Amino acid sequence: MTLLFARDLAADLHAGRTTPRAVLEQVARAVGARESEVQAFAALDLDRARAAADQAGLTARALAGLPVGVKDIIDTRDLPTAYGSALYAGHRPRNDAPVVAMTRRAGGLVVGKTVTTEFAFLKPSQTRNPRRLTHSPGGSSAGSAAAVAAGMLPLAIGTQTAGSVIRPAAFCGVTGYKPTFRLLPTLGMKTFSWHLDTMGLFAARVRDAAFAAAAITGRDLDIGEETAERPRIGIVRTARAGSASAEAHAALDAAARAAEARGARVFDLDLPEELEAADAAQPIIQDFEAALAFADELAYDRAGLSPLLAAHLDAATQIAPDTYDQARRTAKRARQKLGDVFGEVDALLTFSAPGPAPEGFATTGSAMFCRLWTLLGCPAINIAGLETADGLPVGVQLVGRFGRDRQALAVANLLESAISR
Amino acid sequence: MTLLFARDLAADLHAGRTTPRAVLEQVARAVGARESEVQAFAALDLDRARAAADQAGLTARALAGLPVGVKDIIDTRDLPTAYGSALYAGHRPRNDAPVVAMTRRAGGLVVGKTVTTEFAFLKPSQTRNPRRLTHSPGGSSAGSAAAVAAGMLPLAIGTQTAGSVIRPAAFCGVTGYKPTFRLLPTLGMKTFSWHLDTMGLFAARVRDAAFAAAAITGRDLDIGEETAERPRIGIVRTARAGSASAEAHAALDAAARAAEARGARVFDLDLPEELEAADAAQPIIQDFEAALAFADELAYDRAGLSPLLAAHLDAATQIAPDTYDQARRTAKRARQKLGDVFGEVDALLTFSAPGPAPEGFATTGSAMFCRLWTLLGCPAINIAGLETADGLPVGVQLVGRFGRDRQALAVANLLESAISR
Repeated sequence: MTLLFARDLAADLHAGRTTPRAVLEQVARAVGARESEVQAFAALDLDRARAAADQAGLTARALAGLPVGVKDIIDTRDLPTAYGSALYAGHRPRNDAPVVAMTRRAGGLVVGKTVTTEFAFLKPSQTRNPRRLTHSPGGSSAGSAAAVAAGMLPLAIGTQTAGSVIRPAAFCGVTGYKPTFRLLPTLGMKTFSWHLDTMGLFAARVRDAAFAAAAITGRDLDIGEETAERPRIGIVRTARAGSASAEAHAALDAAARAAEARGARVFDLDLPEELEAADAAQPIIQDFEAALAFADELAYDRAGLSPLLAAHLDAATQIAPDTYDQARRTAKRARQKLGDVFGEVDALLTFSAPGPAPEGFATTGSAMFCRLWTLLGCPAINIAGLETADGLPVGVQLVGRFGRDRQALAVANLLESAISR
Repeated sequence: MTLLFARDLAADLHAGRTTPRAVLEQVARAVGARESEVQAFAALDLDRARAAADQAGLTARALAGLPVGVKDIIDTRDLPTAYGSALYAGHRPRNDAPVVAMTRRAGGLVVGKTVTTEFAFLKPSQTRNPRRLTHSPGGSSAGSAAAVAAGMLPLAIGTQTAGSVIRPAAFCGVTGYKPTFRLLPTLGMKTFSWHLDTMGLFAARVRDAAFAAAAITGRDLDIGEETAERPRIGIVRTARAGSASAEAHAALDAAARAAEARGARVFDLDLPEELEAADAAQPIIQDFEAALAFADELAYDRAGLSPLLAAHLDAATQIAPDTYDQARRTAKRARQKLGDVFGEVDALLTFSAPGPAPEGFATTGSAMFCRLWTLLGCPAINIAGLETADGLPVGVQLVGRFGRDRQALAVANLLESAISR
């Protein structure tokens, strides 16, 4: 599996060592070789991308003509956007979502839409894990993770409401970067939960995701090979540690030791009670808002929803407003508390998932180690490179301080280089 | 002008003293009498509403079949939704916005779409002020305010990003209630600024708006005639007091004295510096986000935007991400500071606008006394009842603590009853 390195490719494009068209053809060849078995794309238009690749001035822009995949939960004006649902088959949004417009403005070529589970919920998709085709790629950003992991794309956009960026990145063995809440605008995606839906990026390495975030948002995030110096890293196993497999524990321990060997100050950290308790607020907020976000589909198109989602939304309509309001207050207090925690650490390191990708396709895996960090809105990064004894990727999750994405990425860079691949 | 009292009408409907159809015909007569001169509706479908009025079980629901107007910036599945823009003329959204679905679920009949300025920005609309047809109704929720003020509707939904609920309510002499940020979901409206856009309600009296908010959200907000007991009210003239007309100052003074006479503890309050400074953050956040929210229209449909909006968005694209990030931090600190202020007061009372409705239609008036409270996300209520010497409405604005809408409404109720109409 040859991953495509977005930052290196962009450097080559900027320097004229290659062309957008040549990179695109490399992508086309990878798609030809892998897509039939991986099924990462919900829509693909290489010819349109070829035409766009030939436009003048492309390589002067930050993304320099890099091919980008966009999760099919996000609106695109020139590619169908079905949100993973038969209800929206063939749907053509009028407008690009802002994140798509920003990507194009930065010189990214949107070559296709990547598979999402139905409305980015739990029903498994057709996508397969490129690292082992008999295993789940995770969800809900299955196609984005798989396309990068299969070497079919250097860069893909995904979304996370509970664990939909970190989890598939961990299962497929690539970098998944969930930035601080709203660093990438969520407007123009099919909303599941407006206080939780977060736009994220998939790329080969931490530096590739950081480069892309810088290019898309115009912010100072392109850290390159810069690593944090002697960062204080709190190892957080959480109250749910018992649900993590031996492999997940081994990966977390290995990452901690590797970071320590590279100068990081590593110590175990028990989360304050307010933070552990906030974990339970995430599904309440997610589901209460989803029942409203899908009120129209529930009222008029119920038969077009999967039984799994319809039943889930039905139950969600029973959540009382007071319960929701209380969960929002719990989340607010937890965010303040997390600020205190970050007075004493530079980053937290925890599980990305309870274990490696599950075998088969009955489930997309669990978001139990992600949802708290989505709720808190702080940056989180899946760091790839560790594996089970039989070669399945196991990710670890680096969590940073709200709004301090550059620092989080710099610590993640250290971790990534510390973990021998 | 006979205003329609939503809460009283609903009580009559619940008790069987009238029927949804009878109320609807009352609305139809008012529309027949006033709409040609007021022009509050962008779309109206009374026949569809008549059919809906006859459905079984309607009067058992909270809104009991009350006619409702929905600002044409908000998606409706059965009425065209043009966002006040020629670009979207005839646009038919697939889905009801959640707030519309919630309104229908509560037994509200959506009879029409009320006029919005272009994309809820500043270009004046065709709507006239029912209290004086030569004067502006304000903006951007012009039609919602005017329809209620003209007695054509008991209830209308609007939105505010700077001052688009409070200002038109003040100019038209009705209650405008901007709830705590996201109490009413903003999903399904044409986004201008995701951190500022706030859904609000227009009704005759405070208790009518409170009743509607309770009915739509299922929260404990139906205060009826309940008033706050001896509330501490800080009179806030702000650093911009010099821009308020003598009439606005007189109205604020009159409201303060009236409240005092009813037992309120009233005192002048200077806002802490952090709050005054935050006022300048609102336009930065609004415009930076608008440039992204309209990135697609700017790129592909620029000629279809008004010159006013196009020029504004062009300038907005020049706002640096760092400037925006700094404005967001300023807003966050100001929200914390406002929490401290509310340790010592129960409500703030300030101007709704610099004066009564401007004559003519060159401008929709100024949001200068509203934008800070939109930025801070706290509940704000325009209280009607005061007038200039020659009979134009002058509103005063009651501002409450974030998330404490019931208390804010109860103080507003006291104010409203204290102000003799």
